[in-house]
Amino acid sequence: MSRGCITFLTDFGTTDPYVGAMRGAALSVNPDVQLVDLSHEVVPHDIADAGYLLGQAFRYFPAGTIHLAVVDPGVGSERRILAAEVEGHVLMAPDNGLLSVALRGDEPDRVISVTNTAFYRHPVSLTFHGRDVFAPVAAHLTLGVALDKMGAAVDDYVRADVATARRGEGLVEGQVIHVDYFGNLITNISRQDVEALRHECPGELTVSIGATPVGPVHHTYAEVGVGDLLAVIGGGGLLEVSANQGSAADMLGVGRRTEVRVRSAPEG
Amino acid sequence: MSRGCITFLTDFGTTDPYVGAMRGAALSVNPDVQLVDLSHEVVPHDIADAGYLLGQAFRYFPAGTIHLAVVDPGVGSERRILAAEVEGHVLMAPDNGLLSVALRGDEPDRVISVTNTAFYRHPVSLTFHGRDVFAPVAAHLTLGVALDKMGAAVDDYVRADVATARRGEGLVEGQVIHVDYFGNLITNISRQDVEALRHECPGELTVSIGATPVGPVHHTYAEVGVGDLLAVIGGGGLLEVSANQGSAADMLGVGRRTEVRVRSAPEG
Amino acid sequence: MSRGCITFLTDFGTTDPYVGAMRGAALSVNPDVQLVDLSHEVVPHDIADAGYLLGQAFRYFPAGTIHLAVVDPGVGSERRILAAEVEGHVLMAPDNGLLSVALRGDEPDRVISVTNTAFYRHPVSLTFHGRDVFAPVAAHLTLGVALDKMGAAVDDYVRADVATARRGEGLVEGQVIHVDYFGNLITNISRQDVEALRHECPGELTVSIGATPVGPVHHTYAEVGVGDLLAVIGGGGLLEVSANQGSAADMLGVGRRTEVRVRSAPEG
Repeated sequence: MSRGCITFLTDFGTTDPYVGAMRGAALSVNPDVQLVDLSHEVVPHDIADAGYLLGQAFRYFPAGTIHLAVVDPGVGSERRILAAEVEGHVLMAPDNGLLSVALRGDEPDRVISVTNTAFYRHPVSLTFHGRDVFAPVAAHLTLGVALDKMGAAVDDYVRADVATARRGEGLVEGQVIHVDYFGNLITNISRQDVEALRHECPGELTVSIGATPVGPVHHTYAEVGVGDLLAVIGGGGLLEVSANQGSAADMLGVGRRTEVRVRSAPEG
Repeated sequence: MSRGCITFLTDFGTTDPYVGAMRGAALSVNPDVQLVDLSHEVVPHDIADAGYLLGQAFRYFPAGTIHLAVVDPGVGSERRILAAEVEGHVLMAPDNGLLSVALRGDEPDRVISVTNTAFYRHPVSLTFHGRDVFAPVAAHLTLGVALDKMGAAVDDYVRADVATARRGEGLVEGQVIHVDYFGNLITNISRQDVEALRHECPGELTVSIGATPVGPVHHTYAEVGVGDLLAVIGGGGLLEVSANQGSAADMLGVGRRTEVRVRSAPEG
Repeated sequence: MSRGCITFLTDFGTTDPYVGAMRGAALSVNPDVQLVDLSHEVVPHDIADAGYLLGQAFRYFPAGTIHLAVVDPGVGSERRILAAEVEGHVLMAPDNGLLSVALRGDEPDRVISVTNTAFYRHPVSLTFHGRDVFAPVAAHLTLGVALDKMGAAVDDYVRADVATARRGEGLVEGQVIHVDYFGNLITNISRQDVEALRHECPGELTVSIGATPVGPVHHTYAEVGVGDLLAVIGGGGLLEVSANQGSAADMLGVGRRTEVRVRSAPEG
């Protein structure tokens, strides 16, 4: 058996002792575990942003990895802590809809409400469950403790209202769901959405964002000039509006929730 | 024997090769050691901030962990490098008062002045002891080299003037010692200070910061409305003035050294 | 055999799922590998900055370490991916000149053009070779796969025009090549350049930056007053213009490419 792997996704930032304390709490249970940061710069308290990031990252890790998503505006309230089994991974998050965003509305294979205090760190702080519940429970899971030892299966967890792309006549409509560090505008329109449209409508596809036309769906940034806008399927399989070596967000002055359309151009 | 663990706390930032070079220097001695970042964003040259962060994080790690705190405005001068044994941990820092802030004035079990160049990386840079002294010495400690091989025990190290809370008649007075990433105003008033006051004065306690009343001591953020101010005992066991899903620092326009009072309200 | 080590240097930032996905892709091949961040805050698309950072960090790691430098404005185009053997390390980078900056114009021992798709992650994204080529290839190398299994040796890779210091009569001229987090102005004038000048010209050396005199070459920051400018050989062996506990960049209002001169003062 490998030494196990835990990933961390939080809105804690990196200037405080909080992330270090979580890591320490995990290592105190399993000193050999592999600890990996996804990000600690989720927009504070932003469950949709956290869900997007978790959903885009977790499948690249080995099966058996425990992924902690601690964006938890309700910490200390009666909200539950969930551990969901998905494709051989375990995703732990507060019961605030984060998991359903990560899974884009799909259902996990199994969801446990984590309640077994035998695997917590004690005393349990009412304001820092990341350190006292998430990290030690995850570390115990990497040591081989069965998921169902952590609490009972539940089915009534919070489902978020996940914004998905809509298919219309010769068109797919979606929106920007994340602006990345480069200023790429990532949408909820998937490669599959684009390919289905292409299959159905033999003409060239054209993309627009808000009222701005962006042109066809390219394969890679370098197909347009430096600084030019383009639409491309990004590394996560989602359509994005980008600028080659520039910031589409800055050029267009738009952000999350801006509408994006892919249309089949009428054949000439 | 485990492969050992080293934590890093610096003011080096994360844009330069400095942190990487420290990690490499440690791995060149012990390739299997677990390396963990506490933070590299200590306020530059700010010993009090570094001491606070180290003190809040180190005890969550397994005993035997070596914690490096490299905030070192005097690097290359005659200031010594200390390795202090505290509750089974080793804390290494320049002899500039950082350790006494981390321990809030308590004395370590033992303090060594690190002078044995046999465990340094050579040649030793006069401007980068983090890479050439701290990291390799720590890595040798994780391999089982005894602490007293690193130099002689000393007792005349720098004690910082640690700001502690003061007890008065029906009151505790302290100050803000850290503003965290969320804008929570962390004070030097501990849970124990609050509980002693509560024990002594049966009326409800009320908190004020500067001239602003904040109300009673709550248990968790979610007990007040979103955006409302509250006082709460944070995850590190210290009283903080916070806003539920907001920034108390921004709302109040105050920061470190602002006075905070907990008073027993007169009954009836 | 050790579990191996991979370092990461990118311009991806730390707010997105990209770095996490790279780590996951490496761990999916070698779950026990040591993963170390150099930095993810290279100036976006800035090959010279990336090359400087890689060159300053890689030699501190154990021989056998695989160093990934993914600053890749041409991702998805026909540019090649190189894996260079240097002093027992492997440096992987796009064929865009980054490696020659890292080696300051020196030639690697061997350069391979990575083309063997058997060691890639599939399907290979056209916009994210860091995850689908760099990370899995590096992880296979840490498992003992020979470098020459990754592709054919090449000699026609891109050599960047590396700015080096120039020797004149009683003088060395160079320029600022990096401004660090503290505001230190790092130059391309090396300790060897300074020592050669000192050997040749017995008078005291004096440093100037732009038109501003900075004084002699000091040994350590603490030799001047707090806030004062000085010239010093930094931890990476390069002359820098710094301020003791301050930012030389802010004080002088200068940055990369500013000229720096070391002169032999006429003897009195």
